Amino acid sequence: MAPAYKLTYFNITALGEPIRFILSYGGLEFEDNRIQFENWPGIKSSMPFGQLPILEHNGKVSNQSVAICRYLAKQVKLVGKDDWEDLEIDAIVDTIGDIRMKLATYHYEQDEKIKESKAIPLFSEIIPPYLEKLDAVAKKNNGYLALTWADLFFVGILDYLNTMGKRDLLADYPNLQTVKKNVLEIPNIKAWVEKHPKDNL
Amino acid sequence: MAPAYKLTYFNITALGEPIRFILSYGGLEFEDNRIQFENWPGIKSSMPFGQLPILEHNGKVSNQSVAICRYLAKQVKLVGKDDWEDLEIDAIVDTIGDIRMKLATYHYEQDEKIKESKAIPLFSEIIPPYLEKLDAVAKKNNGYLALTWADLFFVGILDYLNTMGKRDLLADYPNLQTVKKNVLEIPNIKAWVEKHPKDNL
Repeated sequence: MAPAYKLTYFNITALGEPIRFILSYGGLEFEDNRIQFENWPGIKSSMPFGQLPILEHNGKVSNQSVAICRYLAKQVKLVGKDDWEDLEIDAIVDTIGDIRMKLATYHYEQDEKIKESKAIPLFSEIIPPYLEKLDAVAKKNNGYLALTWADLFFVGILDYLNTMGKRDLLADYPNLQTVKKNVLEIPNIKAWVEKHPKDNL
Repeated sequence: MAPAYKLTYFNITALGEPIRFILSYGGLEFEDNRIQFENWPGIKSSMPFGQLPILEHNGKVSNQSVAICRYLAKQVKLVGKDDWEDLEIDAIVDTIGDIRMKLATYHYEQDEKIKESKAIPLFSEIIPPYLEKLDAVAKKNNGYLALTWADLFFVGILDYLNTMGKRDLLADYPNLQTVKKNVLEIPNIKAWVEKHPKDNL
């Protein structure tokens, strides 16, 4: 029988890996469908909103990686204990999304000179306050952001963020390093990372 | 007695208005605390993650506008009937977020020449497919995106999107115009819009 969940994404970590982390954490079997970039132009128009990743489940399909993560987190009980905790989790995830967007503005800049000039405020002024505050959250929560899907989301998307930023963003943030270590030591996540295809970001 | 909810944002619609819409929809009394831009530098560092809007409730505080909207939507029962419907709602909201980010890249571009050159692909290639697909969703759902907080979110943030895009983004999308009309005709939303401070985006 085919697995109940089918994830379609490119053959990279980036926005797919947080989803794969949550599926793996919960021991949910899934088809890890990976599209080669050269085949994407022929497929794009058939996707909801022309984007990947998408999740298929029970004959239905949805796009948007964060929405998919939240849905799967409910399936595997990695959510808050009440609505306010879910708000705190969502706020952390969207803060990581803000960091991602700011890094993307730099990473995807085509003009090398503009790109260089963007790096200075980005890494001296814009990104550090976010990481400092996330680090403080991790310290307060003993090495977790929220011990929920927010943590898996963060560690799952981290390679992508580091690749875009061309640096180890966590170098100065020991508590965020602990979050990374804690998540990667969860047995199901460890097993996933060991067996998953090498990245080619 | 002070209202149970306190929203702090600037004296504009933008990211605050979807929150105000949902609070108004549910008839939840709230303190509509509006910060003048000139006072912001002195306040910024005391805010969680240095950003607005923030919501205060029961002595707790959270940032991130979309997370706040989702939380309040649960309070006022504007959510899906099951987890998959909530995924669909979240995916629509994050798609609107994608549109916002793409418009922001244009709107906040300082170099007028680069800004002009960005407008061409943005409004001929990048934005239309999103709006076409949202319009198809609205058509299928008889003039609503999902008849939940996704609709209020969309119409609440619309002025901001139109301002950034310097045009009526819905001009060619009759079903999205119907969504706007439907939401603005909800009595509590109508009452809110009639009494709320004029925007100065």
